Amino acid sequence: MITPLANENELDVPGLERLINHIIAGGVHGLFILGTTGESTSLSYEIRHELVKRTCEIVDGRVPVLVGITDTAATESLRLADTAAHSGAAAVVAAPPYYFSLGQPELIEYYEYLVERLPLPLFLYNMPSHTKIVIEPDTVKTLSQYDNIVGLKDSSANNAYFNKVMTKMSDRQDFSLFVGPEEIMAESVLLGAHGGVNGGANMFPALYVELFEAAASGDMETVKKLHGIVMQISTKMYSLGQFGSSYLKGIKGALSLLGICSDYMASPLHRFREKEREVLAAQLKQIQQQL
Amino acid sequence: MITPLANENELDVPGLERLINHIIAGGVHGLFILGTTGESTSLSYEIRHELVKRTCEIVDGRVPVLVGITDTAATESLRLADTAAHSGAAAVVAAPPYYFSLGQPELIEYYEYLVERLPLPLFLYNMPSHTKIVIEPDTVKTLSQYDNIVGLKDSSANNAYFNKVMTKMSDRQDFSLFVGPEEIMAESVLLGAHGGVNGGANMFPALYVELFEAAASGDMETVKKLHGIVMQISTKMYSLGQFGSSYLKGIKGALSLLGICSDYMASPLHRFREKEREVLAAQLKQIQQQL
Amino acid sequence: MITPLANENELDVPGLERLINHIIAGGVHGLFILGTTGESTSLSYEIRHELVKRTCEIVDGRVPVLVGITDTAATESLRLADTAAHSGAAAVVAAPPYYFSLGQPELIEYYEYLVERLPLPLFLYNMPSHTKIVIEPDTVKTLSQYDNIVGLKDSSANNAYFNKVMTKMSDRQDFSLFVGPEEIMAESVLLGAHGGVNGGANMFPALYVELFEAAASGDMETVKKLHGIVMQISTKMYSLGQFGSSYLKGIKGALSLLGICSDYMASPLHRFREKEREVLAAQLKQIQQQL
Amino acid sequence: MITPLANENELDVPGLERLINHIIAGGVHGLFILGTTGESTSLSYEIRHELVKRTCEIVDGRVPVLVGITDTAATESLRLADTAAHSGAAAVVAAPPYYFSLGQPELIEYYEYLVERLPLPLFLYNMPSHTKIVIEPDTVKTLSQYDNIVGLKDSSANNAYFNKVMTKMSDRQDFSLFVGPEEIMAESVLLGAHGGVNGGANMFPALYVELFEAAASGDMETVKKLHGIVMQISTKMYSLGQFGSSYLKGIKGALSLLGICSDYMASPLHRFREKEREVLAAQLKQIQQQL
Repeated sequence: MITPLANENELDVPGLERLINHIIAGGVHGLFILGTTGESTSLSYEIRHELVKRTCEIVDGRVPVLVGITDTAATESLRLADTAAHSGAAAVVAAPPYYFSLGQPELIEYYEYLVERLPLPLFLYNMPSHTKIVIEPDTVKTLSQYDNIVGLKDSSANNAYFNKVMTKMSDRQDFSLFVGPEEIMAESVLLGAHGGVNGGANMFPALYVELFEAAASGDMETVKKLHGIVMQISTKMYSLGQFGSSYLKGIKGALSLLGICSDYMASPLHRFREKEREVLAAQLKQIQQQL
Repeated sequence: MITPLANENELDVPGLERLINHIIAGGVHGLFILGTTGESTSLSYEIRHELVKRTCEIVDGRVPVLVGITDTAATESLRLADTAAHSGAAAVVAAPPYYFSLGQPELIEYYEYLVERLPLPLFLYNMPSHTKIVIEPDTVKTLSQYDNIVGLKDSSANNAYFNKVMTKMSDRQDFSLFVGPEEIMAESVLLGAHGGVNGGANMFPALYVELFEAAASGDMETVKKLHGIVMQISTKMYSLGQFGSSYLKGIKGALSLLGICSDYMASPLHRFREKEREVLAAQLKQIQQQL
Repeated sequence: MITPLANENELDVPGLERLINHIIAGGVHGLFILGTTGESTSLSYEIRHELVKRTCEIVDGRVPVLVGITDTAATESLRLADTAAHSGAAAVVAAPPYYFSLGQPELIEYYEYLVERLPLPLFLYNMPSHTKIVIEPDTVKTLSQYDNIVGLKDSSANNAYFNKVMTKMSDRQDFSLFVGPEEIMAESVLLGAHGGVNGGANMFPALYVELFEAAASGDMETVKKLHGIVMQISTKMYSLGQFGSSYLKGIKGALSLLGICSDYMASPLHRFREKEREVLAAQLKQIQQQL
Repeated sequence: MITPLANENELDVPGLERLINHIIAGGVHGLFILGTTGESTSLSYEIRHELVKRTCEIVDGRVPVLVGITDTAATESLRLADTAAHSGAAAVVAAPPYYFSLGQPELIEYYEYLVERLPLPLFLYNMPSHTKIVIEPDTVKTLSQYDNIVGLKDSSANNAYFNKVMTKMSDRQDFSLFVGPEEIMAESVLLGAHGGVNGGANMFPALYVELFEAAASGDMETVKKLHGIVMQISTKMYSLGQFGSSYLKGIKGALSLLGICSDYMASPLHRFREKEREVLAAQLKQIQQQL
């Protein structure tokens, strides 16, 4: 889930409520807040804690809430996890610390430190483009021995990696394996992944739920049709502008065009200017006609 | 196809003949020589030219032969392409030059330079881990306008990338899209890729052909079963030793254990020592029992 | 300056006082806290704010205090800068945000956002190995036009880069250019840098001050002698253990052996175990004999 | 030394002769051909061998000739080394193979393979931006135990690295340590490097020789003056155009403007177009006025 912002220091609270209800109405099986798409690392801690509380209140038990606690400072991760536990979240999600470069043994020690202190189950979050480190398949295997480490969200887009993890974890169907980039959700679920964490579901939740269900049940015809629309969204709406953040700008811009919430982005990112917004509006219309 | 070597400066010619016949007997639809798995960049030019000639002779038209001409020096690529054309090869394959770092416009100019001089159709070869540059989806689109550029082999293992390329090229069913790492062949073909270029097919060609056909026809049950075996090969046979080349050492070692050809590797790589060879033999046996 | 810690959530306050007095007694011209060596990104915000206040109190105007405010969240940077201003610090220092990957125009906008809101002058901090982005020489030039951006600390260790920045800024002697890694301080100052920010000065402040002064005055004989000792420290004390953090572990371990402060390190890093500590003690003794 | 080319497949032989005589007249202590600046990896092998022969003939013993043999195929390196030995070259220079990614033990084995077969002494060549691997200081130390490995050329521009190597090799004054980027030659020689390998010396050999001699003798006043001119060349002549190759385009363009040799560049690089050439001409004039 993206984080609706009124400005740098304030949530767009009405927008947050509309967004959550919109997403849940689309049938999603859970809500992941404060991930990369949620701009978590750009938000003040006050906003992060407030978002956890308000989201859990608005969701009110309708679906499980997963809370990103990725941080360079373990104590801040733990503080946020406490707020998550008190607010009724189901689990927390942590990518490796992303300032110092660690080796795999150091990474294992880091997760051990966390998990011994966490009040909620933990999902590992593989995000090498942002954290400069891969959680190697053998590291996932090692860490899965902790009862409180319950799954992995992989946002590497590297399916050779993901398939290796799935193979090594094939004896542990209770260990959840999710993929990040929506472009690869269909094929990953076809081969056994337990789900996708898709930014596009902020805009069109039902589309991604249906694609997941088609993939999980092996309905190739529906998979191909819906995956085709997901790829239209990816190539048309996530590629305006020249920087890495165009994906996020596209989603927030579209949500604003759809009247759901503000497209304000926290520093260091910025929402689209008028010119890109117009192109985005045209492409959004084109996508909507296919749904 | 790997390159059977008697030593640094000599092909293992009987091994080459056995290997080619073994692979073709497995039903493959084509043979790709002098790729990364073929250690092309480690071979003397004399051996490269000789391999092209001998392979085409041995294949003798049974399947199309694709010849890797990846080089930092365009004139050497062209020289090898001439040998390929004279020997009866079907096409050539070229990754970006891998010493100087290029921008996308420079990369386009490079391929334009090549294609204007090539006697055979060209496949692009995306291999960013080795060449330090991605052939961006829009660059593929631009280059596909040349009649003589007929496809792409993507070895990035990044399926978000590959799905974007497939989407952008969806109006060009005549432009062939192949994936490299065998770990992702099944899912890529399920979603529309035209084939896989799989190192493991040196050992077990029929397995990969059957997996391809199951995926192309949407037979999910067979896909899951055979993909499972492919992943056993990947996680058990390609991960001995601590360096990036363990995949290649595993394949060559297994071919030697199977009595097909020598496992000699050209500098800077080295075949497994006795200890790893023993572990590999045990794992090979395990895999064979599943086939 | 390193951050003396009693444990994950508590400063080693007596150690902090001893450390600051030890460093100032060595004659340093300023104190930089909450940099990479200060483990800033690993500390809770409570500790970061407390460290700023306590340091400024202990220093009590004897030397200027520079406060690192590097953060992925601009609002947290600004909050820390406010504490710095109220505590009497002289300036703040900010590396680029290190989670999202930015382009240079986005980076310029980021610093513009900061500088318009900062209560203190700002030093740019180039640290590409940790932040995944270089502050390009032309970006430094552009940003130097803001009155409140007063200098650059470069920790890239790339002296071709640093010399380009020095050349481009040669008309602005009021813009301070400092280098990070102590291994290159001597040569950088010889060619015009205004100073070094050296982790080793936590242990041996006078050595680094004397080396700086010898370099600034062009006394090559002293430079060579003292630079030789600095390089002994670098190659002997910063290279135990196998990970990138061995530099920091060496300094904290030595300060503990010297009786100055605790060697506790915040997660995700860890102090040396007994075995490395013994080797470090031997090498520390060897260095001390040369001083 | 750059490689003067008439076209993709032909040396500019009269230009080569003028260039060599121009450089030697400037007082250089040696000539390094077929390095990165010599576009070695872009040239056909026929041209590489021809260049070695012709260069040695033209030089005719006036200065030692060092020949780059960097290659992904060790047998081609050895073949070129044989030509170098027969032509009367003094030594060869080899960067790590740059297609497969190696670990340090594999890198050591690679150099051992080479050195056991080489007819001439070998310089190591550290060039991580192009080869994807650093020759770690301890690897240099290990390899220096071979009698026939006589030095290192470091083009990393990382002076922390270079100072560590100098410190580890300080007991071996017979092991030559050279730096690549001319922007850091002055400071490196001031602290003990044995020389620089400077692309700019193709244009202005006397300038770089004088700078080297000033640095070697500790004449800081001359160093600062001449280093300032070198940095003008770097920031004005090497930064036209937007790609990594602008340095090389600048040198070849200037040599053409000076009437010394052709500015043709081998694929995948291209010489400047008219517009950049005009800017370059103006900046060349400006530099010449300072000499």
